[in-house]
Amino acid sequence: MIILLGGNGYVGGAYREYLQRSGLDFISPGRRELDCANVDQLTDFLRNNAAEFLINAAGYTGKPNVDACEENKADCLLGNALLPGIVGKACAAAEIPWGHVSSGCLYGGRRSDGAGFTEEDPPNFSFRQNNCSFYSGCKALGEEVLENAPRCYIWRLRIPFDEKDGARNYLTKLMRYEKLLDVENSLSHLGEFVHATLQCWQKKLSFGTYNMTNPGSVTTREVVKLIRESGIKQWEPSYFESEADFMKIAAKTPRSSCVLNSAKIIEAGISLTPVKDAIRDSLKNWQPEV
Amino acid sequence: MIILLGGNGYVGGAYREYLQRSGLDFISPGRRELDCANVDQLTDFLRNNAAEFLINAAGYTGKPNVDACEENKADCLLGNALLPGIVGKACAAAEIPWGHVSSGCLYGGRRSDGAGFTEEDPPNFSFRQNNCSFYSGCKALGEEVLENAPRCYIWRLRIPFDEKDGARNYLTKLMRYEKLLDVENSLSHLGEFVHATLQCWQKKLSFGTYNMTNPGSVTTREVVKLIRESGIKQWEPSYFESEADFMKIAAKTPRSSCVLNSAKIIEAGISLTPVKDAIRDSLKNWQPEV
Repeated sequence: MIILLGGNGYVGGAYREYLQRSGLDFISPGRRELDCANVDQLTDFLRNNAAEFLINAAGYTGKPNVDACEENKADCLLGNALLPGIVGKACAAAEIPWGHVSSGCLYGGRRSDGAGFTEEDPPNFSFRQNNCSFYSGCKALGEEVLENAPRCYIWRLRIPFDEKDGARNYLTKLMRYEKLLDVENSLSHLGEFVHATLQCWQKKLSFGTYNMTNPGSVTTREVVKLIRESGIKQWEPSYFESEADFMKIAAKTPRSSCVLNSAKIIEAGISLTPVKDAIRDSLKNWQPEV
Repeated sequence: MIILLGGNGYVGGAYREYLQRSGLDFISPGRRELDCANVDQLTDFLRNNAAEFLINAAGYTGKPNVDACEENKADCLLGNALLPGIVGKACAAAEIPWGHVSSGCLYGGRRSDGAGFTEEDPPNFSFRQNNCSFYSGCKALGEEVLENAPRCYIWRLRIPFDEKDGARNYLTKLMRYEKLLDVENSLSHLGEFVHATLQCWQKKLSFGTYNMTNPGSVTTREVVKLIRESGIKQWEPSYFESEADFMKIAAKTPRSSCVLNSAKIIEAGISLTPVKDAIRDSLKNWQPEV
């Protein structure tokens, strides 16, 4: 039995679908059934349901975007910094392995040698660097709390997208904004992410942290070009002159734009489509929102 | 009716005693009666008990000392960073004023102009400076979460001491260590702190942050001298050569040593005894642990 926390969220919904399609037994308790911030309740729930594995897809991301976390710091702290530690304690008490959906937003830019960040590189976009959004700071603390957690996977998702048009899909977001910030990023195809994370458990990969982004990186302009080439939307967005300009006009808190190195998961035998191909595929199979 | 959270702790015990002695009505719910990390439960509790004021003396300090917070990051985050935000939400929902026992440990040293830190100075010993203990980082986040909390006092306690010999009393701690780190600090006499914080509410002082330390500062060597002069203990402690030496031999995480300026509370009409006099008084009235 797999326990899925956060099953009503965007990422959790993708897990739900995948688990159903795969015929894997799972339960995704709602907030009324389980206060997953209560370590004793969660431990009992795991034991009572003979849990074998837990997926923590619960978190607080802020709506419509990460700026909302600046206004809701307590919720952001609870969902992103504290909850992973509570889940870790419950899973240790119930003696089960588990996986935590973390984020690649702990980084900004590229490494000084020009490469993408590996799992060995300490976060450079965090409270400890005093340069980050409250969201990124909390996500980094959440990973820090899990430093010594036994039998735990930390899966770093980064800017999810897929073929389903919708407010949380990066491709949809780009199409809905008139003015964009041109930055370079690694991205995660949500379906591939979900599949790859479950493979970690099923193939008994070593516990620890994995950058779960599709290999490579893209700039905003490149993604816009791919969208235009797909024929889904023809538009000529304008661009902010600079990040400073974007911060001044459109944002409350800095965004993490970063390139991650996902060689560790690839070398462990889990395949992920190169990012530009994954974007092309999503656009080819595009399912417009009704 | 006053609600006291954390009534079983060291600081909470001093509140309990003071409230009893003053004949003020209060309840201090234990963990079995109330999960104060659950905002709905806490809000209901406040409403059901016709609460007029709340004191949050709950927190996680680590035993025997702050090093324990490095090993128990989830508990430290919950007690010190998250809980204040949850309490703030519940008090806002129940429409009552409240006070949070924070800490002066958000600072290190003195201001660059040589003065003590005022409430206007941003913390310089916090995650955002990447120089702090996990405890100090969490305490600073706890204050950050309360930035916009309505009708909230933030009371900064710093290294509590009083006349009651005991493991949590700074004077006792010094007497029990063979080797000390000579640093300069502001300190809080616990009884005076408790009295002064309640005066904030009773005298309807403006909400906001108050450094609640006895005016002035002392070095470790000066406190040792005062103890020797009192006749309570004659010993010749040795001293670490430097903070680096202390960190290497005796500590896991850096200590905040700092001088605070408590002029704001004094100017608001609440008196606090100058720190050296307060230490002398405590030693004069010393009650040895049995």
